Order: sequence, then C-alpha cells, then structure tokens
Amino acid sequence: MNPLQIREVGLDAKEVAARRAVAEVRDGMIIGLGTGSTAAHAIRILGERIQAEGIRIQGVPTSARSKEQAEQLGIPLVDFAQVERVDMTIDGADEVDPNLHLIKGGGGALVQEKIVASATRDLLIICDPSKVKAQLGAFPLPIAIIPFGWQATLRKLRSFGYPLHLRTDSAGDPYRTDDRLYIVDMQCGEIPDPPALEQRIKSIIGVAEVGLFTGLTRRVIVGNSDGSTQILERP
Amino acid sequence: MNPLQIREVGLDAKEVAARRAVAEVRDGMIIGLGTGSTAAHAIRILGERIQAEGIRIQGVPTSARSKEQAEQLGIPLVDFAQVERVDMTIDGADEVDPNLHLIKGGGGALVQEKIVASATRDLLIICDPSKVKAQLGAFPLPIAIIPFGWQATLRKLRSFGYPLHLRTDSAGDPYRTDDRLYIVDMQCGEIPDPPALEQRIKSIIGVAEVGLFTGLTRRVIVGNSDGSTQILERP
Repeated sequence: MNPLQIREVGLDAKEVAARRAVAEVRDGMIIGLGTGSTAAHAIRILGERIQAEGIRIQGVPTSARSKEQAEQLGIPLVDFAQVERVDMTIDGADEVDPNLHLIKGGGGALVQEKIVASATRDLLIICDPSKVKAQLGAFPLPIAIIPFGWQATLRKLRSFGYPLHLRTDSAGDPYRTDDRLYIVDMQCGEIPDPPALEQRIKSIIGVAEVGLFTGLTRRVIVGNSDGSTQILERP
Repeated sequence: MNPLQIREVGLDAKEVAARRAVAEVRDGMIIGLGTGSTAAHAIRILGERIQAEGIRIQGVPTSARSKEQAEQLGIPLVDFAQVERVDMTIDGADEVDPNLHLIKGGGGALVQEKIVASATRDLLIICDPSKVKAQLGAFPLPIAIIPFGWQATLRKLRSFGYPLHLRTDSAGDPYRTDDRLYIVDMQCGEIPDPPALEQRIKSIIGVAEVGLFTGLTRRVIVGNSDGSTQILERP
C-alpha cells in the first residue's frame, strides 16, 4: 500500500488518540476501561498489547459493554469492588473544555464511568478534535435520575430553563443505565460555569448523578487523522 | 374500663399525632402516605375515616410497604407518576430539629419519601416527643448510594470523619431500597448545619440521596401519651 494514499484517506483520529494513550500502560497497572466508540478502540489496542508484549494488567470495566469487549479480548478483569484505587482510566468524552471539564454520558454509562473516574489517579481522556470546545454545552448534558417520580424530577429540572427530554430505547421505553436509572438529556447550549451547574443539578432531589465531570481529568489526548496527537493538560 | 386506668397506661403518642394529622384530610385531596411505624398509624386511621365518613381521597404510597397496607385497607391509590402535585403528605421522622429539618430513612424508604415530600404542598410530620431534638445527629444519618463501587463511595464518605457502615438485611446481604440502592448509616453525633451537610454529602460521586430533609416540612405534630398534641411550625 502506498503511504501517500494512507495519508490522503486519513487515519481514524479516535484510534490515533487511543493508541497514544494505551502506549502509557505499564506492567502491573490497574486500568479503568471506559465506554463508547473511542474507549472501544483503547480496549482493543490494549488487548493487542497484552497479546503481543505479554504485559500484565488488570482492567476495571465501566459498563456491561466494556466488560463484554474486554472478556472477548482476553483482558484480565478485576471487579472495581476489589480495588482500592485505579492507576489509570482511559475513556472518551462527548465534549472537553480548556479546563478539562467534560460532558460525558452520551453512551449512557456516566454513573459507573464517573464513580471509576473519581477513584482514578490518572484519568486520561481520548478524543478527536471535534470534541474540543471553547465552552461546554452544545452536546446535550446527560443527567441520571431515580426512575420513581421521574416526571416530578423532570419538572424540577425544567426550572433551569433548558429544553430536555427523557432518553428512550429503540422500543420507546425509558432507557436504563446499568444501575437501572433513567437519563434526561438537557440541551444547555452553553455552560459558563460547569462546576457550579454540576452542583446545582446534583442537589436536586431525584437526581442521582450528572454527566459533567469537573476537576477529575488529568490529561486529554487529542488524536488527528494525520497520525499526530496533542496533549491538553489542566491549567 | 376506668378512664383513670387509661390515663395511667397512657395512649400511644405516635397514634395521637397520626389521628390529629389525619383529621386535616379533606375531601378530594391527594395524600402522600409515608413509611414506618408512625406513618402506618396514619394510614390505618385514614382507612377508618374513608370507611366511616366516605371521604374521597387518593393516596400516593412512598414505599412497597405503605402501598400494601393502603391496598389492604381499601384506600384508593394513584401512581405518583400520574399526579402533578401532592396536597398533603403525612409521614414520620427519626429526628426533628427546631427549624423542622429532619433525619429520615431509618426505615429505608428515604429516596421515595424525599421525592414525594419535595412535590408536596403541605408536608406534615408526625412523631412522639422523643423525636424532637435541639440538634440533629444522634440518630444515624441514612445515605442512599449507587451499589456499583459502594466501597469507593464509603471511602469518600469516611473523609467526613464520622463512623459509618453499610446497612445489611437479616441475611447479611446489603439492604436494598425500593430503588435498588444501598444505604450507608453515618453516625454524625451532632449536625450543626443540616442544609450544608446535606449539600456536601449529596455532591459526592456515588451518593444518590441523603436522609436529611431540609426546608421541606411545613408543620410537625407531636403527639403525647395524655392525648394532647403540640404543633411545631417553621420559624
């Protein structure tokens, strides 16, 4: 194959970022395995490294989906319950801002992803350039709520003044997270102060978790289709 | 029976409070039905009023237990999902302070009780005098948490410096709320600022709801074993 042709077609920017992140995995690490299309690249490449190099790691899945993929690839897994701390978590994001605050949860795994992220020493976010924004909010903000009385919780969330709707599955039933919660997607448009909004929404009775990840990310690896990467660090 | 003998034995103070509260129920109301031994008195007395006077109300249960009791008594029920607002909720509490802040959830129904309470126009708390405290905190504070990674959430909660433990059922398994959450009981001892503690705990990743009810209660009816009642109103 002609290398020039590769350059013209372009690489998958998500995969470029994933490859760069997985290169940081070291023998003996406990690695949080994110959920979504970008994280799936990382899990696949991690499986390749285990096969090719024989590195010994233990993976902590953040969803039933990432668990299934890792099992198929023969990645040794450990239950999050069994570990005191996760050395590194590699996960995608729906939006990243210059402070490394994130919107996550488009894939519906925000609760477990956030619990694992908050117990992780080195949270490494991987994405393509389209996810990097000057300000969060164009992507709908996912909010995990208690199913009981979800209509009342929706009414409270409406007081923020943003359009929102309950996420449904292909059958039209409410979508359920792995924790059996519902998800509301809130179309904020712009979020000038992500930590403040996170606190305000989380404090609402009926809200279990918010898909704003503030102050958790150590570095963001942005992949480009020319094969290069760019590292964003917290200011 | 000699009336003096009744006075000596004394009435059930919880029942006295429940009777006084149920006397406020009016035709056409939607009534939140609390959970626990005191609320059970109110549900029973409400059933008696429906039988004796034919008042038409609709009850909104806050737990599987209160639903079962109401059904056995023939109290017409409506799903909380179907109502925009609850006119009055009658519920017990584990502790009440002079600002009418509460600790609730000893019975394990705090999440649904709090969701119903927060959609209620007139939250009426009923108790005996032993529940009224100058300051909250002697009763263990129940905190509902996501089962996934509960060990990590417990470690975060330990940073508050109070003894705590995961609630278990009679088989020694983690107790589950009707929403399939776990409960941690935190022995605070004293809680100088209940709204601040509620916010701090709720903001922790992995915490779904806190058994501190602040700013929700309109009145507390305290029953006494001599048949008298005392009404506490918000200052």
